[in-house]
Amino acid sequence: MREVFINDLRAVQSTLVEMAQDATRVMEKATKAFTTSDVALADEAIALGDTLEKKALALDEAAIRILAKQSPVARDLRILVSALRISASLERMGALASHIASIARYRFPGLAVPAALLPTFIEMGELDVKLGHEIAEVLANTDLDKARSIQAEDQRVDELHRHVFATVLSDDWKENAVFTVDVTLASRYHERFADHVVDISSKVSYLSTGEWHES
Amino acid sequence: MREVFINDLRAVQSTLVEMAQDATRVMEKATKAFTTSDVALADEAIALGDTLEKKALALDEAAIRILAKQSPVARDLRILVSALRISASLERMGALASHIASIARYRFPGLAVPAALLPTFIEMGELDVKLGHEIAEVLANTDLDKARSIQAEDQRVDELHRHVFATVLSDDWKENAVFTVDVTLASRYHERFADHVVDISSKVSYLSTGEWHES
Repeated sequence: MREVFINDLRAVQSTLVEMAQDATRVMEKATKAFTTSDVALADEAIALGDTLEKKALALDEAAIRILAKQSPVARDLRILVSALRISASLERMGALASHIASIARYRFPGLAVPAALLPTFIEMGELDVKLGHEIAEVLANTDLDKARSIQAEDQRVDELHRHVFATVLSDDWKENAVFTVDVTLASRYHERFADHVVDISSKVSYLSTGEWHES
Repeated sequence: MREVFINDLRAVQSTLVEMAQDATRVMEKATKAFTTSDVALADEAIALGDTLEKKALALDEAAIRILAKQSPVARDLRILVSALRISASLERMGALASHIASIARYRFPGLAVPAALLPTFIEMGELDVKLGHEIAEVLANTDLDKARSIQAEDQRVDELHRHVFATVLSDDWKENAVFTVDVTLASRYHERFADHVVDISSKVSYLSTGEWHES
């Protein structure tokens, strides 16, 4: 029975890793679509975001089946409940990245971001993609060494998010409201994407250490 | 054993109802703070949002304890897993409402919304509060009759959300970027709040009918 359970858990874990990789790919395509006005990439991002939603549903069903069949307790139970939460976060990350792709799509053939903020969005996108790769590794190996760099990168994303706001709200900002709306929302989506990575990483470290580390 | 379980479930249910009422109160205070520039109300909203976060954590722990002690299967198991998801949605609703209060707080003593959009935000806030009350009732009585009006109100919130965007992106919009940013984000928070209500209502109807009704 125990062996069956371990195998079930491994299957859940590898689906989570796959979902993290998918969410990262959605962001990779979305941020490139957003910063280069590439409508084909935007479409790819949106389509991939949809398949991620289906994977999340399937994973939730699998976790519920395991709960029903195996009635795990203690740490095993917590792992499964965490898997449900992590799946919800990963699905949300895909949706946030999709939203960025939708903005790019909507403004095509124009660019959704004015030149002055382009480097900021390129960096934010790169950081989100890096965070996505790292959380996939954390989920694959429960490699907690990554937790520290995840913290640092999330802080940098927050900094860039604040920079976008400061730019938009400064007297020098002469762009029209379309740009203002687009960069406000896109920046917010980037920031939430990074937040979810931090959330997932604290859940994994909680499972490994048995203690909740506030992030 | 069964009786203990039913009592445990009732306790979970009444906490969910309480959380829905709290989230609604956060929105009630937040939307009033936002549309009247009332900083004291904004502070109350933010403080109440924080207590909601603690309630969500406590509920999750309670649900995990029940899973461990009672090892429910079939419908009972699904109810508990749904309770975990509903708790996450309610916590998020409180956070979204808090964000609206924070915008009001930040712009005080000024108003975060220009006169032209004030009626739109007043209506959006009222709809969100109504949706909050309705979802609390649905959770209390699993009263599925509410589901239809929830759908209609959510659609109206979406309409108002699109109206905010259309206004901001029209040639007539002469407000500065501060207003543009504030109304863009606040409108998005209102819309997400309503989305969560719809999500919760489909989870409750799923539990009652055993079938998933796409919303």
